Amino acid sequence: MKSVIAVDAMGGDHGPSVTVPACLDFLDAHPGTELLLVGLPEPLAQELSRLGAQSRSRLTVVPATEVVGMDEDIRSAIRTKRHSSMRVAIDLVKEGRAQACVSAGNTGALMGTAKFVLKTLPGIDRPAICGVLPTRKGVVYVLDLGANADCTPDHLLQFAVMGATLVEAVEERARPSVGLLNIGSEEIKGSEVVKRAGELLKASTLNFHGNVEGNDIYNGTTDVVVCDGFVGNVALKTSEGLAKMMGDFLKEEYTRGVFTRLAALVSLPVIKAFRRRLDHRRYNGATLLGLRGIVVKSHGSADRLSFSTALERADSEVRHGLNERIAAEIARLHGLGELAGTNGASRNAAAA
Amino acid sequence: MKSVIAVDAMGGDHGPSVTVPACLDFLDAHPGTELLLVGLPEPLAQELSRLGAQSRSRLTVVPATEVVGMDEDIRSAIRTKRHSSMRVAIDLVKEGRAQACVSAGNTGALMGTAKFVLKTLPGIDRPAICGVLPTRKGVVYVLDLGANADCTPDHLLQFAVMGATLVEAVEERARPSVGLLNIGSEEIKGSEVVKRAGELLKASTLNFHGNVEGNDIYNGTTDVVVCDGFVGNVALKTSEGLAKMMGDFLKEEYTRGVFTRLAALVSLPVIKAFRRRLDHRRYNGATLLGLRGIVVKSHGSADRLSFSTALERADSEVRHGLNERIAAEIARLHGLGELAGTNGASRNAAAA
Repeated sequence: MKSVIAVDAMGGDHGPSVTVPACLDFLDAHPGTELLLVGLPEPLAQELSRLGAQSRSRLTVVPATEVVGMDEDIRSAIRTKRHSSMRVAIDLVKEGRAQACVSAGNTGALMGTAKFVLKTLPGIDRPAICGVLPTRKGVVYVLDLGANADCTPDHLLQFAVMGATLVEAVEERARPSVGLLNIGSEEIKGSEVVKRAGELLKASTLNFHGNVEGNDIYNGTTDVVVCDGFVGNVALKTSEGLAKMMGDFLKEEYTRGVFTRLAALVSLPVIKAFRRRLDHRRYNGATLLGLRGIVVKSHGSADRLSFSTALERADSEVRHGLNERIAAEIARLHGLGELAGTNGASRNAAAA
Repeated sequence: MKSVIAVDAMGGDHGPSVTVPACLDFLDAHPGTELLLVGLPEPLAQELSRLGAQSRSRLTVVPATEVVGMDEDIRSAIRTKRHSSMRVAIDLVKEGRAQACVSAGNTGALMGTAKFVLKTLPGIDRPAICGVLPTRKGVVYVLDLGANADCTPDHLLQFAVMGATLVEAVEERARPSVGLLNIGSEEIKGSEVVKRAGELLKASTLNFHGNVEGNDIYNGTTDVVVCDGFVGNVALKTSEGLAKMMGDFLKEEYTRGVFTRLAALVSLPVIKAFRRRLDHRRYNGATLLGLRGIVVKSHGSADRLSFSTALERADSEVRHGLNERIAAEIARLHGLGELAGTNGASRNAAAA
């Protein structure tokens, strides 16, 4: 199966200086994939020329006339910037010219525009952001990471189905285990929404492990961890802050004096191996699940390696037929052989 | 001011084998404090005899006849175990024989029993658990860490007042800054409850910094971080899991072969300094804020150093008159010169 990915080349903190070389790296490694490079023609031409890649097979430049700012208001991005690189990249998915889109732009604008242009899959009330984190045992998929601050039990159930389908498809793992993020040993075991979500998950056909706690994320207790976007976002950003602080503390201690610098030199292979195991660039690319098209969000500060990891994620999701599988699983969840394309279907089905 | 602390000597994963030596360490370092050691007389006598401390000034054994299990149901702990070491220690605070109580027992049972026996301070709807975490700049106080999964904006405001008062008292810092834990760059900026809490905080007399995100906890952006108990518990446990994984990865890399073991040997001072900066034992002791008496919860797995840190926290809170200050600040929050001891007062005040 041939895969075509539309790339928002202007998004992220670094724009084309990162996205263009990352695209070239990606093309070298993935001969079966074609990229549509969307952005302002001039900076793209400059960057391609700098890299000696003015014409390249499987790489087409698609012009856009504006750029969505990293802090831009979502509504303004959707309403007024119809020719932004982000919007054009998503439009290419909508038109069927690309099967996936990757952007390192503003998360809110990306989710908002993708929902507006692509719409959600039948039976999905809310799309969710699903990211990958390293664990003791491998990786864990966590969702939602911030698209939905307030969730109902039904939303959490849908997230669980989407997350499990993603792992089944991309990691090729049968019946991945799903954990519901909760608080354990405290007086009130979880919020009312989470308690009810637990009941729904228990009654579902998913491989539901039960409640998990924050530490289970990194213990790799389950393949998927489900939570609302508020909790998921806090867990993710808290982790980023702690990992960065620990890394910086280690660096500070190693650079404190002559002897410690010597120790650092001797420890270099160890430190490199350690850093590689936790290198967030190897896990870059969060998937916006539940849309009628594959959309992958790269970290805004992504570098070349990191951005090409996000491209690989999108490519893998296309090749594994992710969205068709999600559509089928959501239809199965609602007990419907086939769902008409009405977005309200899930609530009706749930009520039936 | 003389301080008397009641210690639940049976609580925690290790019971008297940790709590008794920790108490003796603490007494050596704090000549102005007296401890009431509450527990089953036989194991306590054995432990004291083993340590050659059968009789000791400022240490009195107070007998209890039962122990609350670490996984015991809260209701059963409160209703049926009226002579447990935990309950007796809290009763001592209630009777005025001790000014604070420290326990490494079951968090839910401790909070439940403390609420039942001591009651909340006037104007406080819900007590909260406030813990201390290391940051780049020093420490941060985070609450609630798990007592209240579902919170209203008013609860979060009360947590903010209590947390700020704790920092002001114990850290002796004037007008500590308060951050409201939220999600930042996403489509929906925060849940409805958090948005409304932000408005209340802005209108308060607190030194409100505004919203903070997960990474701000470890960046030390504010002195206090306020969140509901679900989010706080997930942030705490996620941090514990990640820190442990990173520590174990580092250890694994250093013990992989002969050369890496050599590097570890050379790096020993660096690794020790690094570990000391993050040593959770130096931050042990979460305070149950909002009760009519000081109650400090030690981590269940606390060792000797860790448990004595929790004792120090309780002692410091007594000496700094924490509860009188909280009562005064809460009265000020509700605009009441003096509050009668009615627990419903806060809601009436808010409605006025």
